[in-house]
Amino acid sequence: MTRASKRPGEFELIAKYFAPLARAEPGAFGLTDDAALFRPKAGHDLVVTTDAIVAGVHFLPDDPPDTVAQKALRVNLSDLAAKGATPRAYLMTAAFTHTVDETWLKAFVRGLKRDQTLFGLALIGGDTVATPGPLFLSVTALGELAAGKMLARAGAKAGDDVWVTGTIGDAYCGLKILRGDGLGLGDKERAALVARYRVPEPRAPLGPSLVGLASACLDISDGLIADFGHMSDASRVAIQIEVEAVPLSPAARAAVDRKRVALADLLTGGDDYELAIAAPASARARLAGRAAQAKTRLTRIGAVAKGRGVTAVRADGTALAIARTGFVHF
Amino acid sequence: MTRASKRPGEFELIAKYFAPLARAEPGAFGLTDDAALFRPKAGHDLVVTTDAIVAGVHFLPDDPPDTVAQKALRVNLSDLAAKGATPRAYLMTAAFTHTVDETWLKAFVRGLKRDQTLFGLALIGGDTVATPGPLFLSVTALGELAAGKMLARAGAKAGDDVWVTGTIGDAYCGLKILRGDGLGLGDKERAALVARYRVPEPRAPLGPSLVGLASACLDISDGLIADFGHMSDASRVAIQIEVEAVPLSPAARAAVDRKRVALADLLTGGDDYELAIAAPASARARLAGRAAQAKTRLTRIGAVAKGRGVTAVRADGTALAIARTGFVHF
Repeated sequence: MTRASKRPGEFELIAKYFAPLARAEPGAFGLTDDAALFRPKAGHDLVVTTDAIVAGVHFLPDDPPDTVAQKALRVNLSDLAAKGATPRAYLMTAAFTHTVDETWLKAFVRGLKRDQTLFGLALIGGDTVATPGPLFLSVTALGELAAGKMLARAGAKAGDDVWVTGTIGDAYCGLKILRGDGLGLGDKERAALVARYRVPEPRAPLGPSLVGLASACLDISDGLIADFGHMSDASRVAIQIEVEAVPLSPAARAAVDRKRVALADLLTGGDDYELAIAAPASARARLAGRAAQAKTRLTRIGAVAKGRGVTAVRADGTALAIARTGFVHF
Repeated sequence: MTRASKRPGEFELIAKYFAPLARAEPGAFGLTDDAALFRPKAGHDLVVTTDAIVAGVHFLPDDPPDTVAQKALRVNLSDLAAKGATPRAYLMTAAFTHTVDETWLKAFVRGLKRDQTLFGLALIGGDTVATPGPLFLSVTALGELAAGKMLARAGAKAGDDVWVTGTIGDAYCGLKILRGDGLGLGDKERAALVARYRVPEPRAPLGPSLVGLASACLDISDGLIADFGHMSDASRVAIQIEVEAVPLSPAARAAVDRKRVALADLLTGGDDYELAIAAPASARARLAGRAAQAKTRLTRIGAVAKGRGVTAVRADGTALAIARTGFVHF
């Protein structure tokens, strides 16, 4: 039928698989009403973000369904973390293909459930449709934080330090491996990199604790250089990155050492979902303390200066050649 | 690239076409940050809903792009109206096909802009992706209303009146016409019905004024009988609809009179996006007054009784035969 009415199968799908994910949140009405009720905490702002992932574009069609669910949710949770917000709820629109069966759905819901528990949020609404095209998931995530405290891309100041969470370039390597290039690595290293591509680690424990310390923050989805470029544009400052200071995982480091990937590719590859942070030097000790509390690796990789654009400089003073100039401003 | 990074074309697309739609709302940051800031009014609840429309399922691939945009937005605004909420903001995920060119996009954005002005809300976030599958639009809409006042599907009580806004079955007829069945109607009548299918009329002016008067409310998307069935289920009451009282447009009436469509089809066809309302008889005069203020047709079509399920009864006392029993409880 070319109409918006739900097919009987859709009601069952929602009741059986998705309504249980909404149980913890009374305002979701078990996904049986037209809309959800969301009561923001008094004195708090809401932070809202939406991101979609498409099979063959943002994940591989044969990725395990629980990891597909987690990626759909986590790319949004990463945005909330970058704004200093604590996740509260999400809505999901799913366009399922005919290949989606009970087994797939059960694993998919298991992935959502796991992350709801881990990150402390509930499903409060959604829509499912059938599509002859690729599987498609769109998530809208709601978080909150004290009024007026949201971290932004703008705000970095000359003299600030530049920091990054976790390690950079793992997802880039993971995708290469899934496409058949083993990068000369062992099974365990390859599995670690693939996992980083499939299931990003949103820095939800750290993000809210950056409020009051960071002068600017965003999440790295387009690539470290490109996203610091966004911070540079929004803050109207120059950002200098010390290439050798950028933290790499042992597996990614091994691939670079064996010349199977270029360092420049790791810095531009994207899909990292780490936080890019600017903060005054006076905040160093407190930042380190909060990162330790959040059990999150945090590395100082450069500094903010007057001017515009991003420079990635080696220890010997030479600039790293970055091919994808469309994203980079020197 | 199989990664979440934005292609350069996507930045331009957002900057050129979508960022202007976010201009009125400072918390949208011109769609350049990771997330939007939304400051709820003090003492208000947020109402959140998400609905997706897919080409070939919820609209026709050659529908005018401005009407596609309006439908994507309006099916969500209809949900907000049914909950008594006033629209404030929306986020949109668009999966565009290669057939989407500048001309299409301009018209699409024109449709969004028109409705933003008409309904008083702003775009605060979104995502665009390319898809080889059908064009797909997912909207999340945020509305608000005084805390604790949200209208629900549950709440209808024996003795209540049952009301419906606008006219029923027009979209069903409109889709039939788009598929080549003229229903024996003239050009003007056919155009009116097609317009009702393509661009539903969310009852945004009336919805918020039902707060404090309606005991239950939902929007009719699955069909009048099916959706009163949902009210019956949620409220644990029986709902009796007087078939002859259901308001039809002159064009739909003409199609019924000429026996080109069955009355039962209009009552089950769906896509009406009218409000289904239950309210105590003591509220009749006030309801009529608010409908007049909102310039919205409001018709009493039945009553709530003890029991369960929906009955659709003719003036002669016979029940209307409804084929789609999957949706209907007698």
